[in-house]
Amino acid sequence: MSDKVLLDYGSGGRASHRLIKDLFLKYLGGPALNRLDDAAFIEDMHGPLAMSTDTFTIYPLFFPGGDIGSLAVHGTVNDVAMLGAEPRYLSCAFLLEEGLDMQDLENIVRSMSEAARNCGVQVVTGDTKVVPRGAADKMFINTTGIGRIIADPAPSGSRAEPGDAVLISGTMGDHGLAVLAHRQGLSFETDILSDSRALNGLTCNLIRQVGNVHVFRDPTRGGLATTLNEIASQSGMEILVHEERIPVHREVQAGCSFLGLDPLYLANEGKFISILPETLAEKALELMRSHPAGRDAALIGHVREGHRGRVILKTSLGGHRLLDMLEGEQLPRIC
Amino acid sequence: MSDKVLLDYGSGGRASHRLIKDLFLKYLGGPALNRLDDAAFIEDMHGPLAMSTDTFTIYPLFFPGGDIGSLAVHGTVNDVAMLGAEPRYLSCAFLLEEGLDMQDLENIVRSMSEAARNCGVQVVTGDTKVVPRGAADKMFINTTGIGRIIADPAPSGSRAEPGDAVLISGTMGDHGLAVLAHRQGLSFETDILSDSRALNGLTCNLIRQVGNVHVFRDPTRGGLATTLNEIASQSGMEILVHEERIPVHREVQAGCSFLGLDPLYLANEGKFISILPETLAEKALELMRSHPAGRDAALIGHVREGHRGRVILKTSLGGHRLLDMLEGEQLPRIC
Repeated sequence: MSDKVLLDYGSGGRASHRLIKDLFLKYLGGPALNRLDDAAFIEDMHGPLAMSTDTFTIYPLFFPGGDIGSLAVHGTVNDVAMLGAEPRYLSCAFLLEEGLDMQDLENIVRSMSEAARNCGVQVVTGDTKVVPRGAADKMFINTTGIGRIIADPAPSGSRAEPGDAVLISGTMGDHGLAVLAHRQGLSFETDILSDSRALNGLTCNLIRQVGNVHVFRDPTRGGLATTLNEIASQSGMEILVHEERIPVHREVQAGCSFLGLDPLYLANEGKFISILPETLAEKALELMRSHPAGRDAALIGHVREGHRGRVILKTSLGGHRLLDMLEGEQLPRIC
Repeated sequence: MSDKVLLDYGSGGRASHRLIKDLFLKYLGGPALNRLDDAAFIEDMHGPLAMSTDTFTIYPLFFPGGDIGSLAVHGTVNDVAMLGAEPRYLSCAFLLEEGLDMQDLENIVRSMSEAARNCGVQVVTGDTKVVPRGAADKMFINTTGIGRIIADPAPSGSRAEPGDAVLISGTMGDHGLAVLAHRQGLSFETDILSDSRALNGLTCNLIRQVGNVHVFRDPTRGGLATTLNEIASQSGMEILVHEERIPVHREVQAGCSFLGLDPLYLANEGKFISILPETLAEKALELMRSHPAGRDAALIGHVREGHRGRVILKTSLGGHRLLDMLEGEQLPRIC
């Protein structure tokens, strides 16, 4: 194979088949994918399912703490997990620009393979398109995932109830700031790494061992502030959160001050919000803190009746301010 | 909303939500999509499933006989149908270039909505990304579909057997030539239209009323020749087809001669190959010809033992030639 991606690799012909065999099957192969039929055969899915899709356009392809390949696995696995499901199967569609470095592609596919293995999902079907130079920027990846819902009823943004506790699984803003700092060539005292990781291990534990989770949601694009607004709007509730209880890495805080950004609006790729009855909050926190994906978990606020769809931040100085949804684009191509 | 797509529309914030509400939910909304959770809740999927994914990069977005929106529905619906399944649910991920015309986007989403309704599938989850001007060419769409497999065993390229008849559902090369002629501004006596259409109605009828279909496959990229080679290779069989039995529109034949192209290597988006026992061929043909998607169906050849993975074309003049797989890229961005 050439050391650059050629248009031929997307033709559906012999060159495409070589790419599929020598690269995709090598790293992602398994009983379903190896069949090379038009669709994957999935034998063992019964009961209610969760399905989610995401196209990843992150720039640059490699960033501190991850790359577009592992991110594309984690992102969709997490979205499926947020519905109270065990993610099981992924489709994976590559959109490649002619001339992309083959070594970069191989590193990314290998990274996807490791990420998929680590979170227990199989890539069962795929697609590759190559577009001429200039028609895309290097590489985009779509992953779509399905999983079996194990929570009954399934968590939903609409199920937040008065009195519920609002928990987050860790620090806010790491992914957004890591990518931005890397793009701009900024360096801080210590490296800020993306928090890109799979959350399904911990969310499934919470469902099985704590139960009755009303809402799971991962605060990706738009950050914690936007996601809380979505939940408030879906459920028709008001949410109050305490600024000083929201964990933010010192370096992220410093970087945000320097760049004029707010960590509550920065994307996260390995954190989730969990909303459940106050009586279960302690047990949930304990379980979260005992898991690598939830070490810095915190109870940050409560749901209450009040102004429908409003999120209020109680500041460190004791004041209150409206925490609004992100209006426009703070940072393009963050995921 | 602006009359052009803005970066803000992909932010995950307020502008994204307006786009989702005013455009995507307007046309594609339904019980699952309207929930606006991270993943779709699918209640009624049991038993073995088929899953398939495809990213559509076709240029131009609108072409004679279709557009990227309906194509993105048909393409994935057809791939799911090829596994002997009833397609049921689609995810849909838009990748938009900043500055894309909003009216074009609306027309495409409306076209997807009609196509989905016509083939009985629901869009249950989605994603929208906007990348800065120049990072993508106008618009790409990924659709991923799941369906319930109703054939037992499921058809597969590996199941072609000696003595099986090889049927195709209609004329070859229409999609490829229509797009190419449109791109180059060529005009022929009559317009050549893409054959983009859903095939699941007819394939499900074949399974239910004829049964025992060994292989379904839609000859998209790489055309009939490449797809037959895939089947020969998966099953370890030899396939013999008769050139004069392969239906090709007169205008497509003329256009191909003019442009130096071979219709057997051109993409189709509304045709399928069906391979089944010779004894069922007449019944299958009759059923196919009575359906709008199979009016020009023909028995074009047979499967036999012989040289593993080889496809032989018996020419109109009585000679034999090896029908090889497409080597490189004949026509970029055809689907």
